Amino acid sequence: MKLDKNLNILIVGLGLIGGSYAMGLHKNGYKVSAIDVNESSIKYAVENKIIDNGSTEIDESLISSADLIVFALYPHVFLEWIKNNQHLFKKGAVITDVTGVKSCIVYEIQSILREDLEFISAHPMAGKEVYGVENADDAIFKEANYIVVPTDANTFSAIEMCKGIGETLGFARISSLPPKAHDEMIGFVSQLTHCIAICLMTCSKSEHLVDYTGDSFRDLTRIARINENMWSELFMLNKDALLTQMETFMTEFNGFYELLKNEDADKMKEKMIQSTARRALFDK
Amino acid sequence: MKLDKNLNILIVGLGLIGGSYAMGLHKNGYKVSAIDVNESSIKYAVENKIIDNGSTEIDESLISSADLIVFALYPHVFLEWIKNNQHLFKKGAVITDVTGVKSCIVYEIQSILREDLEFISAHPMAGKEVYGVENADDAIFKEANYIVVPTDANTFSAIEMCKGIGETLGFARISSLPPKAHDEMIGFVSQLTHCIAICLMTCSKSEHLVDYTGDSFRDLTRIARINENMWSELFMLNKDALLTQMETFMTEFNGFYELLKNEDADKMKEKMIQSTARRALFDK
Repeated sequence: MKLDKNLNILIVGLGLIGGSYAMGLHKNGYKVSAIDVNESSIKYAVENKIIDNGSTEIDESLISSADLIVFALYPHVFLEWIKNNQHLFKKGAVITDVTGVKSCIVYEIQSILREDLEFISAHPMAGKEVYGVENADDAIFKEANYIVVPTDANTFSAIEMCKGIGETLGFARISSLPPKAHDEMIGFVSQLTHCIAICLMTCSKSEHLVDYTGDSFRDLTRIARINENMWSELFMLNKDALLTQMETFMTEFNGFYELLKNEDADKMKEKMIQSTARRALFDK
Repeated sequence: MKLDKNLNILIVGLGLIGGSYAMGLHKNGYKVSAIDVNESSIKYAVENKIIDNGSTEIDESLISSADLIVFALYPHVFLEWIKNNQHLFKKGAVITDVTGVKSCIVYEIQSILREDLEFISAHPMAGKEVYGVENADDAIFKEANYIVVPTDANTFSAIEMCKGIGETLGFARISSLPPKAHDEMIGFVSQLTHCIAICLMTCSKSEHLVDYTGDSFRDLTRIARINENMWSELFMLNKDALLTQMETFMTEFNGFYELLKNEDADKMKEKMIQSTARRALFDK
């Protein structure tokens, strides 16, 4: 199947990311419908021309006419939804998702899916500190990474189609990683940083420090404003990879603590020179 | 002594911060001279009207005519400079500084200073990732905190004069803390965050991750580009306070690690709710 404007696209879960997908695809001339449990989300999206039509029900005609279904649900809800409703899917439909962790969900979905269907997973690394379709904005994809997460079971055409979604939505960088490597990377660049930000805010009574926080502290804790239900689920689902990254960080941090304790200024400087050089690569 | 435009102000150390002080004071109509070991820094500052005049020498006439001397040197250089040259200072002159750590330096300077002189310490919490008077810009003070760090030995008039410098330079918030409380605060909001940023960059080979880093990782590591000579000295001089803050953070981080390891989602959520609420205070 190729991504073209004759396809019927269905978004399941019309929150910030689902809504931003719908907005971007609809703007680009695609036919987009949506299913969400929240009546007001569907109403808002139709009124603001983010989708053509939608439903709060398991709407058989919407589901069975969809050529491409994008799941933007919590992982455990996604899995249940597939189990309960895949008998309604159109023959040969392609399924994709926006889930932030992969190993724990991709293989399970692929193993239970009807033989004529194909699930090609993707991770749009974009977000905001606000939620809901009312905050949907496809501009959040402009500077962001889009990662296609194929397994050995995926077909070339589905992988290309999935990349096409990222291109249509205007992501800055599109790449591809298998599930395990994806989870290792995301454990480090996203989940570990969120753990650090949380602990910086919880380790010390900080209310009285508001007046003194400069840019450094604000930068390191911006992501400490966090949706606890979503992130605790994502952490649990990527538990092993995240624990490994946390251990790696703790070992390094403890090593730096020992350098300071022993007043080893030379070794501390070496670390700073290394961190400066590595960080400079990110600013190119 | 009151801060007024008849005073002769001398800046010792014309780097980024000394240069930005000179620029801001000179713009506001103050007479500003400077001493720096670097010929090109003095030349640049005179040509760009950042200072009225300057010298690379221990210029007796400049020093002995200064009513207010601002030291913007590395801490150990600052102390040596006072020891070697205070016999040249004008009777009754007031001395201030911009040093990032306080307990280790303020009492020592005060104890060796001639009886007719007064040292009132200050910490402008501003900076950039670039150095030198060529990058001086008094706009860096606009959103920043200025902390006056008086000891029991300071006079009301010197404290007020020191606050006046912060007001003239246009700092957003001016406050006052004694040395020990200052160092505890700075150990947490500035030094601990720099340690974390460094360790995030050094704990894992990250060169291949450039393509995947989203805003979170970039935010948490921006300050990992660091002047290793200055920061290793600041860490060493605030060693006890910083080690304590690192321990506090490690304990919390390790506790979060255990929650994840034990799959205690409820307690993780509690931490996230707390971090969200505390961080929200910073955005008011």
